[in-house]
Amino acid sequence: LDEIAADPSHPRYASLLMRHRMEVGAAKGMLADSALIAHGRGEAFDYLLGEKTHAWAERAMRHALGCLIRAKSPVLSVNGNVAALAADEMIRLANHLNCSLEVNIFYRTPERMKAIIGHLEERCEHLGLSVPILGQAPNGRIPGLEGPRAACTVEGILNSDVILVPLEDGDRCEALVNMGKTVIVVDLNPLSRSAQMGSITIVNEVVRALTLMCAWLDEDLLSLSEPTFENHRSLREATETIRSGFD
Amino acid sequence: LDEIAADPSHPRYASLLMRHRMEVGAAKGMLADSALIAHGRGEAFDYLLGEKTHAWAERAMRHALGCLIRAKSPVLSVNGNVAALAADEMIRLANHLNCSLEVNIFYRTPERMKAIIGHLEERCEHLGLSVPILGQAPNGRIPGLEGPRAACTVEGILNSDVILVPLEDGDRCEALVNMGKTVIVVDLNPLSRSAQMGSITIVNEVVRALTLMCAWLDEDLLSLSEPTFENHRSLREATETIRSGFD
Repeated sequence: LDEIAADPSHPRYASLLMRHRMEVGAAKGMLADSALIAHGRGEAFDYLLGEKTHAWAERAMRHALGCLIRAKSPVLSVNGNVAALAADEMIRLANHLNCSLEVNIFYRTPERMKAIIGHLEERCEHLGLSVPILGQAPNGRIPGLEGPRAACTVEGILNSDVILVPLEDGDRCEALVNMGKTVIVVDLNPLSRSAQMGSITIVNEVVRALTLMCAWLDEDLLSLSEPTFENHRSLREATETIRSGFD
Repeated sequence: LDEIAADPSHPRYASLLMRHRMEVGAAKGMLADSALIAHGRGEAFDYLLGEKTHAWAERAMRHALGCLIRAKSPVLSVNGNVAALAADEMIRLANHLNCSLEVNIFYRTPERMKAIIGHLEERCEHLGLSVPILGQAPNGRIPGLEGPRAACTVEGILNSDVILVPLEDGDRCEALVNMGKTVIVVDLNPLSRSAQMGSITIVNEVVRALTLMCAWLDEDLLSLSEPTFENHRSLREATETIRSGFD
């Protein structure tokens, strides 16, 4: 990677950098066994999307950011893959929004929780930002989920009105929607259950999406209004984009 | 996996079994760093194909098998992912065809070569089949490739007229085609360079394809003739199948 890291103009730079982050995440014990396979599935869909942020994705991102800014109790959910790929971007976004990150993983083990929280704390220190990191001591449960998958915190996910859940499992996404929350999904497969269940679905690579959203926050908040946004139309535009690649 | 392995009617049985094989392959040191990500990309395309063998894929498989049967010097190329996923099927096919397997990996290290050859020998013993396994001591080079990626054996890949290369890299596939060989590719992405370069491209999951091809060999060789097979048409049917999933 070192060769490529020195040359951001390399056509595979972004993709190889993300793989490198996944390798670091795996070495740190942050990832589930299936994490690299899930990343590969994402790569395939990103390839079909031309590895770029489409206009319809930008509209979803603007609408999502507007909802997060206007939320009473926003929260950003972080799992192993998100921590590995986009820790800095999630921290910057939480800092901008003045909200918490909550570590919430599908295959919960004390070791993985510790590794992810440790990584986020390390990145906060590196960035010189202080953001509350919840999830270590869950004191609430998401209704409709079984076992450790339901665990969350009352002050974070449970009481949130708007929640960003990048790369989330379909069941959990559905359970959060059923709680009446505005659920913002980031998923490269517009046909996935998470993508279909979400209130606002950003069909884009997570780092590309979050980097742009952070840049918008630095610029001009007023331009973020997307009053006519409809998620089902945005999803249709995503599938149409992929479909057209096979024409 | 144990629970699922006991129940082949589980809807995710095949997919989870393949993941399990990849985990075993990783533990045995057979896989490159990028192997699980590549497997995930395959999963995404298989999902888009409905995880089944389509009629156009069956025709490509019949044509490929006919070419292998009629070949003077057929050879089956095995890399890390193929060894992890489909060792038994590759051994059975080589045994039926009375030809060699040649281990030929993109990221060649002595450790990975040893692990893959050891695994194949173990599976041969388990199946009670004796098949020559080449590749340990390369004595030839594929023209047009650089460094260890060109290494092959004269008696295997170099002198072959028909070669089966499942899950092969695009550059190597192209170099083999340029040598005038009939190159049979197995690749789930019909748009990939390997798929586009191959003489006969089987767009299907490798184990599903090879299992069916072995079953045909047990049945009736005469039904394998596909005189009107055209690869570009087969690839178009594959892309059309995926496209229609987005309608």
